Amino acid sequence: MSGNNSQPGRTVASRMLAILDAFDFEHPKLTLSDLARRADLSLPTTHRLVGELTRWRGLERDDEGKYRVGLRLLELGLLSGLHTQLRDVAMPFMQELYESTRENVHLAVRDGDKVLYVEKLTGHRSVPIISRTGGRLPLHTTGVGKALLAWASTADIDDHLSRQLSRPTRYSIREPGRLRHDLQRTRRRGFATTREEMTLGSCSVASPVLVDDEPVAAVGVVVRSSRLELDRLAQPVLSAARGIGARLSEIGDDPYPGYVHDFARPLP
Amino acid sequence: MSGNNSQPGRTVASRMLAILDAFDFEHPKLTLSDLARRADLSLPTTHRLVGELTRWRGLERDDEGKYRVGLRLLELGLLSGLHTQLRDVAMPFMQELYESTRENVHLAVRDGDKVLYVEKLTGHRSVPIISRTGGRLPLHTTGVGKALLAWASTADIDDHLSRQLSRPTRYSIREPGRLRHDLQRTRRRGFATTREEMTLGSCSVASPVLVDDEPVAAVGVVVRSSRLELDRLAQPVLSAARGIGARLSEIGDDPYPGYVHDFARPLP
Repeated sequence: MSGNNSQPGRTVASRMLAILDAFDFEHPKLTLSDLARRADLSLPTTHRLVGELTRWRGLERDDEGKYRVGLRLLELGLLSGLHTQLRDVAMPFMQELYESTRENVHLAVRDGDKVLYVEKLTGHRSVPIISRTGGRLPLHTTGVGKALLAWASTADIDDHLSRQLSRPTRYSIREPGRLRHDLQRTRRRGFATTREEMTLGSCSVASPVLVDDEPVAAVGVVVRSSRLELDRLAQPVLSAARGIGARLSEIGDDPYPGYVHDFARPLP
Repeated sequence: MSGNNSQPGRTVASRMLAILDAFDFEHPKLTLSDLARRADLSLPTTHRLVGELTRWRGLERDDEGKYRVGLRLLELGLLSGLHTQLRDVAMPFMQELYESTRENVHLAVRDGDKVLYVEKLTGHRSVPIISRTGGRLPLHTTGVGKALLAWASTADIDDHLSRQLSRPTRYSIREPGRLRHDLQRTRRRGFATTREEMTLGSCSVASPVLVDDEPVAAVGVVVRSSRLELDRLAQPVLSAARGIGARLSEIGDDPYPGYVHDFARPLP
């Protein structure tokens, strides 16, 4: 196995980041040897770096000796602007959307050719779904993804359509002509829909959150296919997306909008 | 200023973690020189490590040259067990609690002498509050904190009571005798209350989430002081806490409980 000595050009910092990169959705828990293999590091190097990360509480070790992401990394992640600004601003609008639909409500951002789910509201009666906060799914098979792609630049859309796109179900749209048509319709109507394109049995409606005409995020709901009135869900989804966009434009650069900063002062 | 050379014992890994540790709630955005000072590193070392972290997208640089936590660290944090297990299991119960109260609903865990807020649901009409996901507040002045402390071991409680405790408002309880009495009452009743002990104008009710009699988290609501019927909020809070505890005991070690793993299979 290649390790420390075989790659003298790798910095210690990049080795530490490679260990963190070993974790993903399909691999939330890893043994020391899994980590060494996935990070392409020797076992002693991995052991030392994992030890530092664990003492720092960025990783934690369970009873079976498997490692997973720990409290310190969650705490840091929650300081990101995606969380303190986007997610916190979006929450009351997502809450309203949840109450009016009782379905899974998502907030997602684009990351390359994927959507990253930043927040999800779900109730006991919502349809079980595969999207997970912190998870990624393709742009072209999800409502939030199509909403983000439809507001991208022409060059960006062309580039996306020229790729070999995945087909998670037989209803996924990956033919360039059909997908382009779908994106044009999405843009015209202001919202995207998917019908079993990601998961058999579930459909979605989503709309982009626009700030200065840029799609900074998308908000959407996922419902059972038996709930066929997708277009009727469009109005609450559109209102939520517009509300979030307007509020984001308003707050500008405040890292904690809407919070009480001085807690010894009586509330308004 | 001390830096690279003055502390030859510091490893590169620990220097990188010191840069991440420079960010906290009061300091979500930092310049390069802020980072160097707070991490106690030379400017060249800071520059190099921040460069690596930024290319990795763990940090991002805004238009004014300030750095903050980026997408990659949020994404990693969302893989933690606190998020995928605790938070995801708790969400539908928190949602019910929100619907029955319309108030801020919190999920928090203990971290030493603080509570760390893992999730918060909030609506447009909820009282503005200082708790923030990813933020920490003292154990003895918050509902979730007192709920967690009340179920701690006797030695742990004694240790906590022997400290010099903070007093964010004039109603904060920090006298050992009064606080012990309050914790005993909390334990007897099954839920904690606070009355303007953290923030003037707001009160809270919280209950611990118990798994094998261990307090693994606490769930609570924060309301305006004018809403005086705190004890009436106890029942929905207790139900949520018990529901989450029962579900956590059920799922055991599943890293993604309740999710559909095979997305090409029709939903149940």
